[in-house]
Amino acid sequence: MLYLIGLGLADEKDITVKGLEIVKNAARVYLEAYTAILLVDKEKLEAFYGRPVTIADREMVESSSDDILADASNVDVAFLVVGDPFSATTHSDLVLRARELSIPVRSIPNASILTAIGATGLQLYNFGQTVSMVFFLENWKPSSFYDRIKENVSIGLHTLVLLDIKVKEQSLENMARGRKIYEPPRFMTVAQCAAQMLETEEERKEGVYGKDSLAVGVARIGAEDQKIVAGTLEQLAESNLGPPLHSLVLLGRRTHDLEREFLKEFAVDKEGFDRVWKRDYEGKQ
Amino acid sequence: MLYLIGLGLADEKDITVKGLEIVKNAARVYLEAYTAILLVDKEKLEAFYGRPVTIADREMVESSSDDILADASNVDVAFLVVGDPFSATTHSDLVLRARELSIPVRSIPNASILTAIGATGLQLYNFGQTVSMVFFLENWKPSSFYDRIKENVSIGLHTLVLLDIKVKEQSLENMARGRKIYEPPRFMTVAQCAAQMLETEEERKEGVYGKDSLAVGVARIGAEDQKIVAGTLEQLAESNLGPPLHSLVLLGRRTHDLEREFLKEFAVDKEGFDRVWKRDYEGKQ
Repeated sequence: MLYLIGLGLADEKDITVKGLEIVKNAARVYLEAYTAILLVDKEKLEAFYGRPVTIADREMVESSSDDILADASNVDVAFLVVGDPFSATTHSDLVLRARELSIPVRSIPNASILTAIGATGLQLYNFGQTVSMVFFLENWKPSSFYDRIKENVSIGLHTLVLLDIKVKEQSLENMARGRKIYEPPRFMTVAQCAAQMLETEEERKEGVYGKDSLAVGVARIGAEDQKIVAGTLEQLAESNLGPPLHSLVLLGRRTHDLEREFLKEFAVDKEGFDRVWKRDYEGKQ
Repeated sequence: MLYLIGLGLADEKDITVKGLEIVKNAARVYLEAYTAILLVDKEKLEAFYGRPVTIADREMVESSSDDILADASNVDVAFLVVGDPFSATTHSDLVLRARELSIPVRSIPNASILTAIGATGLQLYNFGQTVSMVFFLENWKPSSFYDRIKENVSIGLHTLVLLDIKVKEQSLENMARGRKIYEPPRFMTVAQCAAQMLETEEERKEGVYGKDSLAVGVARIGAEDQKIVAGTLEQLAESNLGPPLHSLVLLGRRTHDLEREFLKEFAVDKEGFDRVWKRDYEGKQ
């Protein structure tokens, strides 16, 4: 059996009791480590599980899936995914390949940033589609996220923006020379995301949002030191929420009083927050 | 401290290791039991936790929150929520009340149907806002869900429809006479939901969806006997997915080939599914 097991968001104890039992008994344990990361390292997981863990990077999952699935008709293979197992496309590929090989598959769901973002007090019912923000390069500033946000904004919905992480990336030079040397991991911050959003609005000028638009930045959701900061995009572009992982929510105009009450506690500037709320959000549908 | 602890979706072992440690040490343990249910009963939870569990019904959470919060500045109170703790508004109320009383609050996230629905193979990025479907009465057939679905459809997104549950409801007669006698619990099925959706389309006639629109019904997601069925709304209106809880996804036209490949396995009628997919969904944006 192939088990896709969600690990939740913060540390080794966010696995479910059911998931842990399976890991302890699996013949092999892989950890997917390129779409998200836990806030603890592999050694801590291995000590907690009492089992060796193989890091499965993108290359391994995409080109060596048959190694991961080897003999899984006869033994149990645990494939661990930070958050919930079905948050990224690649895992669909692995499941489809398992099906082709007639290997049974079972998934053990867990918390995902897509729902844990509810800790901000924003109602999950009011979210539209989720978008991703990648690190801009000088000549590559993809703005498809802007089109998606525009759609959400057009019907008044909040948008969760997931932020780029770069793990095991090669520099162009090392890639060209075929040297398997990797850059240190990078994680986009809420401040970088807010700045890129404003840069894109400046470029596209469709008025989807602006400096005064309200947003919420979150860091390390689910961990003891989780941080939530509410403010305008301009304020968030100056924020510092500390270590990764960060995410951002752009508010839609269709809000609820409870959301304001809950969020205000996290505002960089409570009076300013109230002023913008009353002017641009309150009672809008 | 007030701990809001997600229990996940299926049984007593879906709690996280962290959540379980807190429950075992809490002074009091409450179980919210009116927005969703686990597939196991209270006694099984109590045996697993080694602790008594108090069922918190809607009345208790909404009017006696101070009893739940009593002394929580000094002792730990665990408030257990099926799924993820922030899936329903009521829990925001409880957190706000705790804030007023200067009681610290921490939440332990867990799986929610909002993300576990990814087990269908549908990409979570392609979902719009979530809607709820209530049991229609002869003279009360609210169709606000139809307006929300229309918005999602207009931008090509999938819609997750959460289905009504009736727990501890009184008949009108018993309510009028002040008799605390409760009806047996009722859970909406995928078939009932699909039928009500078609009834509403027939009434509203705005062409938001039709008998041939593709949808996916799911039951007991996360449990060993979870069931996923894909088909047209007309087919799903005739489906039988067994015991609760059920949910339904109406497909948006913005689909991905991987979604088709993944879903086809679950189709009531694979050829029909392919025909409708090619005609109405494939390559649409």
